[in-house]
Order: sequence, then C-alpha cells, then structure tokens
Amino acid sequence: MMVTMRLNSCSSTNVEQKAINAKLGFLGSADNHRKRLLKLPCSVPQPPSLLIFNSQQPQLFPPVDQSVAAIVLGDGSDSESRRRLYPLTKRRTEGAIPMAANYRLIDAVVSNCINSNIKKIYALTQFNSTSLNLHLSRAYSGMFRGKQGFVEVIAAYQSLEHQGWFQGNADAIRRCLWVLEEYPVAEFLVLPGHHLYRMDYQKLIEAHRNSKADITIVALSGTRDPVDSITVYDKVSSTGIYVVNRDTMSKLVNEYFPEANDFASELIPGAISIGMKVESYLFDGYWEDMRSIQAFYQANMECIKKSNMRYNFYDRDSPLYTMPRCLPPSLVSDAVISDSVIADGCILNCKINRSIVGMRTRIEDGAVIEDSVIMGSDIYQQKEDDAQNIPIGIGENTQIRKAIIDKNARIGKNVKIINKDNVQEGDREANGYIVSGGIVVLLRATQIADGTIL
Amino acid sequence: MMVTMRLNSCSSTNVEQKAINAKLGFLGSADNHRKRLLKLPCSVPQPPSLLIFNSQQPQLFPPVDQSVAAIVLGDGSDSESRRRLYPLTKRRTEGAIPMAANYRLIDAVVSNCINSNIKKIYALTQFNSTSLNLHLSRAYSGMFRGKQGFVEVIAAYQSLEHQGWFQGNADAIRRCLWVLEEYPVAEFLVLPGHHLYRMDYQKLIEAHRNSKADITIVALSGTRDPVDSITVYDKVSSTGIYVVNRDTMSKLVNEYFPEANDFASELIPGAISIGMKVESYLFDGYWEDMRSIQAFYQANMECIKKSNMRYNFYDRDSPLYTMPRCLPPSLVSDAVISDSVIADGCILNCKINRSIVGMRTRIEDGAVIEDSVIMGSDIYQQKEDDAQNIPIGIGENTQIRKAIIDKNARIGKNVKIINKDNVQEGDREANGYIVSGGIVVLLRATQIADGTIL
Amino acid sequence: MMVTMRLNSCSSTNVEQKAINAKLGFLGSADNHRKRLLKLPCSVPQPPSLLIFNSQQPQLFPPVDQSVAAIVLGDGSDSESRRRLYPLTKRRTEGAIPMAANYRLIDAVVSNCINSNIKKIYALTQFNSTSLNLHLSRAYSGMFRGKQGFVEVIAAYQSLEHQGWFQGNADAIRRCLWVLEEYPVAEFLVLPGHHLYRMDYQKLIEAHRNSKADITIVALSGTRDPVDSITVYDKVSSTGIYVVNRDTMSKLVNEYFPEANDFASELIPGAISIGMKVESYLFDGYWEDMRSIQAFYQANMECIKKSNMRYNFYDRDSPLYTMPRCLPPSLVSDAVISDSVIADGCILNCKINRSIVGMRTRIEDGAVIEDSVIMGSDIYQQKEDDAQNIPIGIGENTQIRKAIIDKNARIGKNVKIINKDNVQEGDREANGYIVSGGIVVLLRATQIADGTIL
Amino acid sequence: MMVTMRLNSCSSTNVEQKAINAKLGFLGSADNHRKRLLKLPCSVPQPPSLLIFNSQQPQLFPPVDQSVAAIVLGDGSDSESRRRLYPLTKRRTEGAIPMAANYRLIDAVVSNCINSNIKKIYALTQFNSTSLNLHLSRAYSGMFRGKQGFVEVIAAYQSLEHQGWFQGNADAIRRCLWVLEEYPVAEFLVLPGHHLYRMDYQKLIEAHRNSKADITIVALSGTRDPVDSITVYDKVSSTGIYVVNRDTMSKLVNEYFPEANDFASELIPGAISIGMKVESYLFDGYWEDMRSIQAFYQANMECIKKSNMRYNFYDRDSPLYTMPRCLPPSLVSDAVISDSVIADGCILNCKINRSIVGMRTRIEDGAVIEDSVIMGSDIYQQKEDDAQNIPIGIGENTQIRKAIIDKNARIGKNVKIINKDNVQEGDREANGYIVSGGIVVLLRATQIADGTIL
Repeated sequence: MMVTMRLNSCSSTNVEQKAINAKLGFLGSADNHRKRLLKLPCSVPQPPSLLIFNSQQPQLFPPVDQSVAAIVLGDGSDSESRRRLYPLTKRRTEGAIPMAANYRLIDAVVSNCINSNIKKIYALTQFNSTSLNLHLSRAYSGMFRGKQGFVEVIAAYQSLEHQGWFQGNADAIRRCLWVLEEYPVAEFLVLPGHHLYRMDYQKLIEAHRNSKADITIVALSGTRDPVDSITVYDKVSSTGIYVVNRDTMSKLVNEYFPEANDFASELIPGAISIGMKVESYLFDGYWEDMRSIQAFYQANMECIKKSNMRYNFYDRDSPLYTMPRCLPPSLVSDAVISDSVIADGCILNCKINRSIVGMRTRIEDGAVIEDSVIMGSDIYQQKEDDAQNIPIGIGENTQIRKAIIDKNARIGKNVKIINKDNVQEGDREANGYIVSGGIVVLLRATQIADGTIL
Repeated sequence: MMVTMRLNSCSSTNVEQKAINAKLGFLGSADNHRKRLLKLPCSVPQPPSLLIFNSQQPQLFPPVDQSVAAIVLGDGSDSESRRRLYPLTKRRTEGAIPMAANYRLIDAVVSNCINSNIKKIYALTQFNSTSLNLHLSRAYSGMFRGKQGFVEVIAAYQSLEHQGWFQGNADAIRRCLWVLEEYPVAEFLVLPGHHLYRMDYQKLIEAHRNSKADITIVALSGTRDPVDSITVYDKVSSTGIYVVNRDTMSKLVNEYFPEANDFASELIPGAISIGMKVESYLFDGYWEDMRSIQAFYQANMECIKKSNMRYNFYDRDSPLYTMPRCLPPSLVSDAVISDSVIADGCILNCKINRSIVGMRTRIEDGAVIEDSVIMGSDIYQQKEDDAQNIPIGIGENTQIRKAIIDKNARIGKNVKIINKDNVQEGDREANGYIVSGGIVVLLRATQIADGTIL
Repeated sequence: MMVTMRLNSCSSTNVEQKAINAKLGFLGSADNHRKRLLKLPCSVPQPPSLLIFNSQQPQLFPPVDQSVAAIVLGDGSDSESRRRLYPLTKRRTEGAIPMAANYRLIDAVVSNCINSNIKKIYALTQFNSTSLNLHLSRAYSGMFRGKQGFVEVIAAYQSLEHQGWFQGNADAIRRCLWVLEEYPVAEFLVLPGHHLYRMDYQKLIEAHRNSKADITIVALSGTRDPVDSITVYDKVSSTGIYVVNRDTMSKLVNEYFPEANDFASELIPGAISIGMKVESYLFDGYWEDMRSIQAFYQANMECIKKSNMRYNFYDRDSPLYTMPRCLPPSLVSDAVISDSVIADGCILNCKINRSIVGMRTRIEDGAVIEDSVIMGSDIYQQKEDDAQNIPIGIGENTQIRKAIIDKNARIGKNVKIINKDNVQEGDREANGYIVSGGIVVLLRATQIADGTIL
Repeated sequence: MMVTMRLNSCSSTNVEQKAINAKLGFLGSADNHRKRLLKLPCSVPQPPSLLIFNSQQPQLFPPVDQSVAAIVLGDGSDSESRRRLYPLTKRRTEGAIPMAANYRLIDAVVSNCINSNIKKIYALTQFNSTSLNLHLSRAYSGMFRGKQGFVEVIAAYQSLEHQGWFQGNADAIRRCLWVLEEYPVAEFLVLPGHHLYRMDYQKLIEAHRNSKADITIVALSGTRDPVDSITVYDKVSSTGIYVVNRDTMSKLVNEYFPEANDFASELIPGAISIGMKVESYLFDGYWEDMRSIQAFYQANMECIKKSNMRYNFYDRDSPLYTMPRCLPPSLVSDAVISDSVIADGCILNCKINRSIVGMRTRIEDGAVIEDSVIMGSDIYQQKEDDAQNIPIGIGENTQIRKAIIDKNARIGKNVKIINKDNVQEGDREANGYIVSGGIVVLLRATQIADGTIL
C-alpha cells in the first residue's frame, strides 16, 4: 500500500540530471528534491496506490513507556527475610546490598524496566532506606528528562492522617496511590526489588493485555526450582511480580480490602475470591531471590563464570545499569588472579581466586583471597585521614577464605579469616562478624587487628 | 495460553487466611506469597495451560529505539535557501533560529524522534553551526544516559584525507559514515532539521519494513500544498525525509555513487536508476518548511491561535522538547495582551497584539507591539553593564508592527518600526534591518536610536 | 615575585619573526612557542625574579565547596507552624509549597547554597515529604556529577535500632550522622528550608572560621523585624541558621546531649551551658519565614513589584534555581494584566491584577483575578480525560479576589471567590476552602461548581 | 567582631528549659528558638559587638567560577606534531587519544579546570575532531546545569564571511570571540588540550591579578626539562598556557594583530613589542606534553607505578574526570598480572606485565602482554556480529611486547607483536602498524591474522 516509484533504467538521464545539479550547496533541501525529481523524464510503469497517513489511527495497545508504571518494592521483604540476610541488612535494605562488584541488588530490576522501555519507575522504601535512596537517586535521577521518564523514590512519610509507618506493601501502595496515579497509565507493574533475573516486561504486559486479565502473576515452573514448599499447585509458584490494572489496584486497596496490608497473602487471594480475572505468566529463565546469605553468595558467584553463566552480566543488548562512575583503573602490582571479577579503582598486590573484588578495594602484598566476596570501599583513604587506625583495605599476608567482607572493612596484617573452627552458624557481632552457612560475614566498617584468626 | 487461576468463591477461607497473615512485616516477599497461596484450599476448576516464556523467541521487527539511527541535517538547506532566510541566518544556521518564543527550529524534528522512541540521533552541521551546536548540546546531551540514547552533533572536520568542507548532504554522510555506523542499526532516518511538523516515525519505519523497500521517501499530497513546481508527479511531492537501509546507505555513498554530493538530486534518482526498491509514504499532516521569511513568520503565527491550530504546541502526548530553563516568571506591570504568546522571564509594560514575545524580553511603558515576532534576549542586562548604550529591550512609547526582532536588540524610546514607506523588499543591512515580503527584520543585537522611524 | 618579560621595543624584530612564522598550522603548540620565543633577540632589561609554584603550600582555609556540608531541614517546623500554614501543608511539607509562580519554597535556600559554592547538600525530611522529595530529586539531582556535589534527600527511615520517626531536628541529625559524615567536611551549615532570603554563606563561614567559634548563629537585628517576642536580647534574634563544627556536632548529639530532640531549644542552650564558644553573625538583608498564611501571601506579593523589590527574583548573579522545565510559552487570547507575574505554559483570556499566575494555569473568557496567588496545574488536561468533571482551571466570568488557589483546582463558570461575608478566620474544609486573615485558601484539586459564591 | 553569647554556667536553668521544651515537634523553627532563647535567664557578661553584614561589600577579586573562561585548544598542535603522534592521530585529534586505560588525553586539562573551580570551558576543535567532540559532549555536557557552568565544544564552521577553516589558534579565537565573550568574564585562560599535569589555576589567576599583568605565561624551570632548545632565556621555558585579560584578547586579535594566526609565535611577541605587561608564572610540578609516541608511551607508564608516581591518577582531592561508565567489572579467568593497570569491563585470561589494559579488552588463554598499552574496545562483540572476521580482542597464545594497540584491534591466535627485527622507525601502515622509537603501534581496528609475527 505504498507509493512504489519504479523508475528503473533511466541512468543516462540521471547522468544529465547530475550534471545539471553540479555545484550544489551543502545539505540539499526538499525544494531541490522536488524540482529535480520533477524533471526526471522516467516513466512510471504503474500508478502508485497511496497510503494515507492517519495520525489518529489507533494502535492496538499503547506503548509501555507511557502506559505502564513500575512500582519497585525497595525494601524487599518482611522482617524475617531481613534477619536471614543480616548483617548485610544492618544499615541498609536488601535492594542496596552491593552485588557483583559494581552493582547494587536493585539494579537488576531497574535495568529490566529500562531495557523493557518502562520509564516511569517508583521505588517505595521505608526500612533502613537511606543507602537505597542515595543509590537510586545518584544512579538513575539524571537518566531521563522531566516527567517523561523517571526513577523516583517514595519514602515512607508521616502525615496528619497517617502517623505510622507503612504496614506492608499493600498499605504502602494505598498511601502512595495519589502519587502513583500522577500519570494516566493503564497498568502497574509490581516488582520486588531484591530479585536477580532478566525479563522483557513488554512481553509480560502484552500477554496481560491479550488475556484481558485484571491481574497477572509471574510464576515459575516448579521443576526448575524444586523447593517443595513454594509450589503453588502442580509445579507452578509465584515470584511476587504482578501486573495490575490501574482501576483494579485502586479498587483493591481502597474499596474492597481497605484494611489489607500485604499483597501476596491478602490482596491476591482477595481479588480471586471476588471473581476478578487473575492470570499467570510462566517465566522459565534464571531467577533468584536473595532469601539467605547462601543465596546471595551463590548469586555473586554467578558473575565469575566465564561460561555457563546463568545471569549474563556482560549482555550488550540488555545491559545492567548502575551508578555511573569515573574511577581510575585498577592498579595491580603483583597479583595472580583466577576465576574472579575485579572492579574499577582497586589497588591489588595479592593472590585472588574465585572471588568478587569490589570498587576501590586495596589489598596488600602477600594477601590471599579465595572464594570470597569483597565489597570494596566508599572512599580512597589517604594516609593523613586517621593515622591511628588500621587503614581501610586488607593488610599484608592476610588470608581470607569463603567470606563476605562488607564495605569499608579495615583488616590488619597477618589476619586469617578462614572459619578455622568450621562453624556453620555463629553470631559474633560484638567481634564484627557472624557465620551463616559456613560463610563468614564481616560487618560494614569492621576493624580486625593484626594477627587475628577467625 | 496463560495460567488461569479461577479461585472464585473462596472468600470465607480467605478471611481465615487473612487472620493467619495478621501482623505481616512491610513489603511481603515472594516467599510469603508462595507459602500462603499454597495453603489456599480452593479447587481449580480447570487445569491451566501454561505459556512458556521464551526469551529467545524472535520479534517480528526490533524496536526502533535500538535499530534506527536518525541523521538530522542540521544545516537545513542550500545556500540559496540560506539567502532567503537572511538575515536570520547571518550568524546561525536555520535549525538554530528561535521559534515560537521558547524553541529553536530544530526542536520540532528532534522532538519527533524522541516522541517516536528513536534515541540515537546524529546532527550533522557545518554552516554557521556554533549556535546550533550549543543549543543541541545544552538541550539534549543530558537527556539520555551513555550510549543507549544520545543527540550527538557531528561537526564538519578537517582530516589528512579530506582537507575541505562537506560538499553536500550525501558527502557529509559519506565522511561521517564511520561514526554513523557505530551501532548495529538496521535503518537510517534522514531528516532535514528545519521543518515544522509532527510525525510518528515508528509508523513510517513499520511501513518501510513491511514494504521491504531499500529506501522510503516521505511524500506530501500535492493538493495540500499546491506549489506547482514541487509536484513530483500526480499530486505527490517529496519532503526530503528518507528511510534508508544501513547497507543501502553504505553502498550508495561509497560504492555506486562515490562522487555524488546531494541526496535528493543525485542519490535518490541514482538508486532508482540502478533498480533499488524505492517506496514512498504519504504524509497528510501539517508540514511546513521554512523557505522564506514569510513562511517562517506564518509558522510562528501558528502558535498564537487558540483554536484551529495546525501545529499544536501544547500537545501533552507528543511534547515539544527544548533546552530546559529555570527562568523567573514574566513580570507584567501594565499590559493589554491579545492573541499572543509570552515566554518566561519577560518584563512587560505595554500593549501586545497578535505577537510572539520570546524569553527575557523587556518592553517599557507605552510601547505597542503588533503582528510581530520578538525573539527575546540571551541575558538580563544589568544597569552597570554598559551605561552608554541603549539597554537590551524595547524602549518607552515605541511602536512595532509586522516585524521580526532578532535577539538582543537594543531599541530606544519613541521608535517606530512600522515600515512607513510600505516597502515590500529592501536591504538596509547597514542600518540594521532588511524588509522581506513587507516584514521588517531587525538584525541580531541591532541598536536603534531614540525616535527612529523605519 | 613573577617573571617579568619586559621585551619592549623590539617590534621590527617581531615583524621578521612574524614572516618566519608564516604558514603555521592550526593551534600552535608549546613547542612552537618555545622555539620561537627563544629566537627573540630582544634583551631583557632586568632579570626576572621567579615565583616558585608550590602545590603543597597550604591555603588559609579550604574552599567551602569541599569543606562544608549543608543540612537543609526540609520539614521546616513544628506541628504548630504546620497548622498555621494549613491547608497548604495538607499534602506537602512547607518547603514544597509552590511559590512565586515558578518555584517551591525550598528553592531559595538551596539556591543560596549553590550560589555560595556549597555543593554538598543534604535535605532531611519526614512529614508529608513526598512532594518535597520529588521536587528536590527532579530539580537538583542532575545538577552535579557524582560525589563532588549533590543535593540528597535523607528521608526518615525505620531500622532495627530505631523503630520510630525522627523526634525533632536534633534527633534527625543524630540518626543521620553516619551519612552526614560521609565526607571529611569541617563544618555543617544547618538551614531551615522554609525561609526566603538571599545570603552568601561563604562570608558566614569565613566569619565563623575567623572567630574560631564552635557554633555560629545567624541573627537578625530586632529593629528590622519588631516582633517583641523574638528579640533575644537587645534587638538581636535568631534565624535558626547555624554553622556547627563537625566535631562539635558529633559531640553535642551523641555525647553531651544524647536525649535532646530540638536544636534551638536544647542543643544551643546546652552548648552555651557547657562553655562552648557560640558566636552570632548579624544578617541585615531581607529575611522572611513563612509563619502564617499572611506571611506566605506577602512573600508572594514581593515578586510582583517592579521596583522596591525586597527579594529580587531576577538577580542574574545570584539566580534562583528550581526544576528546569521546557513548557510552551503562555498563550494569551485577550487579557488585561497589571502588576502580576505569569508563569510559562498558561492559557489566559481574562483580567489579572496584582496576582501570581502559576504554571499551566488556564483561565477562561471574562474571568477577573485580583490580589491572588494562583498556583497552577501539574498537567495539561485534555478533553477526553474526564468529561463529567469541571476541567482543571478557572471557568468563564469567574471572579477571584484575595485568594490563594492551590494546584489543580477545578473552578466552574460564574463563580465568585470574593469572601463575600468578609470572614477573617473560617474553616470550610468540607467545602474545599478555609479563610485565614481574610484570605480565602482553596485546597489542592478542589472542585467548585458553576455559580458558586464564596 | 561577632556577637559573642557567653552564656556559660547556666546548666541548671537549661535543664528546666529542657523540661519546658519537652514534646517538641520535629525540626524546630526559628520561632521556637527565639522564644526559648529569650527565656534563658543567663546573664551576658559583656555586650556583644555586632558585625553588620553587608552584602554589597566588594570582594577583592571575583571568584574564578564566574570571572574566568577557559579556552581549551582541543586540536592540540600543528601538523608537524600531529605527524609525530601518527597513527594515533589518524582518525582523532590528540586530545581524544585514549590514555591510562580509562581516560582521554584532554581529561587532564578539563579536570584541572573543574578542580580549580573554573566552570566555563570552551573547547575549540577542527582537525579530526569528531572523536573529541563526542567524548567531551558525553563526558561533560551533563556536568553542570544551564549556563552557570559548561564544557562547550566550538567546532570550526563555515560562514558567509569566513569560507575557510581556522588558520591557527589565534584565528580560531578571533572567529569564536563572539561566543567566548557571551559572559562578562574578566580573563581567558588559554589551555592546550594535550598536556598531562595537575595545576590549581586559581593560584595562577590570583598571581595574574596581583601582578596587574595583561598576559601571564605559565613557564617551566628549564632545569627540570633539560631540552636545550626550549629554554627561553636562562632556564625558563613556556608551556603554551596563558592568562589573557578579556580586553587584551579582544584588542590583540581584532585591533593590533588582525592578521596573526598563531598565539605563541605572533600574538605573544606582538603584545610584548607594543609594551603590554606580560608576566610569567613558574610551574614546578610534573608536566608532560605529548610530542612523540615515546612521550605518550612514557606518560602512560606513569600510571602503573605504585610509588614515585609523578602524576597521581588516584588523587582524591583533585580527581581526574572522564566519561562516566557503568561497565561490568573485569572478569579474570586465569591471569598473572604485575605492575599493570586494568580498566573495567575486561575479559582476561593471560599474563600481563608492566602494561595498560583499556576498557572492554578481551585477551584469551595463554597470551602474554608486556610493556604495552592496550587501548581496549568500544563495544562488546557478540559472536553473531561477524563470524567471518577475527573477533575484537587478542587471541590465544599471542605475545605482545613494547607495543601500543589502538582500539578495536582484531588480533588472531599465536601472533607475536615483538618487533622481532628490532626496528627503531618503520612505516608499515599498509600492514596495519608503524614503529616509532622501537615501539610498535597498531592502527585502530587493525586485523592481524593468526600466526603473524611482527
């Protein structure tokens, strides 16, 4: 249905035309074009049929960038889960935990949104939210212009009507609905912020729209993740990811279930109970939530694999975004490194094996790091900063094995963090660490004296 | 093909469930969800059929934001056209001419790209390009992050191989092709930068792809724009807007027509002559190119219409972008204003009728502005800046009628810019103005002494 | 102490030199320079004395941009004050109240910081903080790069140690001190966010440093603001603005007064009581805090004055920053406007006298606005949005006098908001307004039916 | 001269005061403060003397951020120098050459400006300027807001008055002066863009102002850089860095020497010849310009030193800025690395010794890199991209010694780039490399077949 200009076999004339057109100015205008095309003597074999462009012609569905708003649940999960990731959650919420050397956990979900062309992203936060707020604001606030796209943090707040904190994710959405409804979107996409997976939400939205559902639940095939207790029925379990129509959301939280606090346990069963159309969408890719120190540790270990990587951190077409940096490159004086990832800005002089080494990590001569996650440092410490303390970083001849070293740790010389007593679970918070599943976890900014053996 | 959970009529159980779930923490996790859904005793009337999500499943066409790069021809047009818009083009190229109080001409085309989800935008510039480069860089550089989206100015440059300037738009594309091909896009969208129209390029790209064309030309219906000379054949004329496949572009400029300089007069006829598939796409919306002072003046006058506006400057869904500002609001001391648009940051004390008043315009007591385009000022002048000169702005009791006042003009008191001799065409550049089509055009930064009558 | 090259009177040689240097390439290098200067045969009358540049040479004081962090108290004030600005504070905190057509109240203080070269700005928020957070994040997050400069919102948060909200500004600082101390600044500058004034904080910091004080209080001369109750002693009163040394802050909130909640009433007297050096710095410029609807109304009215403006909104050297916009210009169909300010994006067809007209305000034919503050609208409403409601804006032939119209109001035709009964104080919140000091204040998003008379 | 509130020894009263003040709201206002301070019964031992704040009080010198504009000569140098850095300058100008793994050469000078609080930065470009323009625009355009600060590229342009390219740096400044004078700065700081050094320009400006010079030249002590030919007189040579008063600049290029093209060889001697006050400022820090492949190679090698680094790439207080990235961390499978720097996003499986490894470098098993500068790659190549070519990166068992590998090189397996014939100078451009000073320099995007030995 387009105008086909089959002006073949008129090259000789074209040469003449070309001569006529010699000495043209730069960047010829439409005017030129018109005049010159006119003069072309080539016959048009068949009359073109015209496609009348109609800007009012409705699209089947609106594009997701204007019609969907994502609600990222920044605080991730209930207090039980927080306890399980303790002490990484002592000063920050799950979404803000440093991950895979260069990232924070929440980057995976926010990047999914951006890569799926969803540009209106609200992050609801409350529990230990400062680190997360700072990260989101530094990483994504400048990403879009004006109101067309944004990543906006909505922190819990006190008001004359509501003196208390959010009482659950449904309550959080209820109290923020006046902000969430700022734009005339058609659907809300509810996303826990502490999951690691890669999904094209556009396909999810398309399936939701095609099925004319009120709510769509993203589900997992139980066979892939054989934890019996989470199988819903017959090998299908929920991820906690939902698509909810705008009106449905408003009615659920304000009209039908104004007292409900939790999405998964109250609103979804409630919606089903009153006959709403609830569908599910099966996701068969890699998906991990961080329900324990071990799960977090394993997810980190995904990024040191050269092949068989289940979550590809190097995917060009679907990149993982985070706070942009302009750190200097890592300075490696003398290192033997295998099966590890090294962030920017490190100063290394050691053996590193099967480990994650985060930004600005300093490791001195003779140190050996194995099977560990080193989160790095927020600053370059300079000698004069505090001379009396052990400097931030890892001292000479120190050995670290199967440990998670939270940020800004000050580890002295000849230290051994090797879980020498082979403890599986242990709480030594007073000493600056805990042990979970056999993994030693050093608290943020902990100082470990020279010669200490853990 | 989705899992339908028809868990109707289980509200009583749900109430129990709700009781069980009391005292939930904030932002319930997928874990909660799984456990709780499991416990739901409701039967599932029919087994769900699962939609297996397959992330490798190919899309029919890739989304335009990654697969199309726009090439905006910033310099607009040939030297003849530049002469016709003179003196507005004395210090700037057409795309940089201030337009509709708050914009530059090129904003219309760049906004079309952004609103069409085309995020890779190159602007090729050469002639008097400084103002345009500054505007594009200030307005759009921060709009996207990193390489996923950008508006990049590619200025003409000198190299060891090429000592000269670009010799036309085809030559410009040829010499910049190594940059333009930085990303694996499928098509280039060639856009003159000095047109005023609103088009969804996504539909154009879709039509191009569906027709399997090598090149698609955007054409106009001749009945809408009855300038005889531009009718191609049978009521169809070209806009100078093209979609060109990546390989086609490379072959055209480097292999088949390595000497061609102009797109419209050489490459397109050439492509047709060698049998390439060239289609056309009919556009029936408002479209204006600035081929004269009068056309520019009329396009500005479009924005003062409250109704019957052919180009809607206030369209919420397809906004017109430009350099963001944080100017103070306009301060109006005593003004009678009708059928006019007023930009931010003005200081007004006058009568304004059927006029455009640009940013930071200062108009003193008793002045009367009619049927005019006042472009405004780049700075707030402060008294101490230069006491000996007439200050930037329009002085007391001055009358201006049917004029275009370029930026930073310093117009004294009791001046009359009324084309008193009713000149149609006149060149008084030495006196700071020209007349074109009966419109007086004051040059940028011109100073007009008190009491002058033009 | 500089090398003086007095190479006078060698012009003839210079001409030769010039000839030699003909045909130079573009952008001559240091190399060229060296070689050519060498050849200059001019004698040097006296040997230069060299200034040895010493990059280690200490500066008397470090520049404020790296050594001072501002703590903006976003929530402004206690609940009593919130009540006095009610209903403007119903959904937002004081700092987020729209002000002077284009701004939010907090912009004045943040702009003071930026204009004083203070680049590390933390805003602490808790009460109805969503609007403020969104504004600060949209307006300032992209302003600086990385960690060198920032405006960061620190929202109240819940943690394992602290379940409750902030208990006052001293408590807020105590709980956020771990974030506030992220950088090795020397002083904190404590700034209530709801004041309107222009101050160069660099001079304040300099005075603080010169006096070797622990704390400096910014004070006002009592004669300028003769409210008896706020005179400290002998015509000096405090503004609530403080400079506090980093160590002093840490000791005050954690060691000496770990239970204190309020800065002004507990920490400052406490600091004095234990012998700390507390100085004061007298500020004699315009300064207004918003302690009533009347004070807010008067501060707005400051911006409509052409002369005798006590707070200059148009100061080029010390600009007022806010969220950048790219709105269309205001479209004025038929208006008589005097002594008013008009924001961008309005659609006006009315009489406006001594009023503030905020962004995207729509006022229909025959309406008359006098002595009023119209805050504008967040969106352009489109006809299809909700046909059954009165559209956002002000309807035909409506009269408004001495009123504050909060955002997104939907005011019908032939309405009179004129305080017809001349009420001084009145609470008609159920009807969508209150009266305070004779000023009618319409609540946000209130709908007023056609023909209503208030 | 400040109000000293010596309210010592009133702690008991303070306790009472504290009790009175119990139950305060959040973030106490100035109001609270005033009322409460008033009530303090402590006597004031001595009457305070008030410092009257006077905002009109003139500063000795204006701050540099508003009063100085930097003019960075992006194209570095004359054609002779370009030849000497060939082939790194084949497709780019000197300032755009990748440097020290994460940077471009020009970043050092632009970072000096930013760290010296100079925020108005113009970069003049012409020769092979595309890469530089793209880098500057991506790296710095979003760094500042609006017109208060900027890094703006001014590309050479064609106009009706000037048909040709810039004829030298003096000509470039002359033709751009209308842009450079946009702000009322007091001085221009002229900076060649291809130097590596760290300087606080604020001290330079201060010295310039104190000496009341028209022009100040930054000079080097000849003893530090004992190249005889560049000694001006008696151990002082020029760097090509100048401070020039605004008026002086305008008069020099337009009035006194309207035909001069070069700054160093024409304008400076000219200024001296007509009696202008030309001073010099001795710089004694590390300073390197890139006048040969060897100089460039040595400057890179500076960044691999752990101690005795003459140019500190890790200086926290004076950071080196560049384009922010959010690359994944480097994935190291099996590597022995010594005395090297490694950028983000690499995939390494090799031995690396005394080398620079740039962003996204891929090096396969068994490769050995020594004494080399590997510039890295612009993209992550994906297998399907072009299967027939050698992929971007360095293949298995390849050895590279004392080489510079420009970006996007495709080096096969079992290649040896070892300068086997020990050539000192050699032009093998047809084969993809040249040899300069014994260093093999591979051209950008060169492909080297498996098994090749150079």
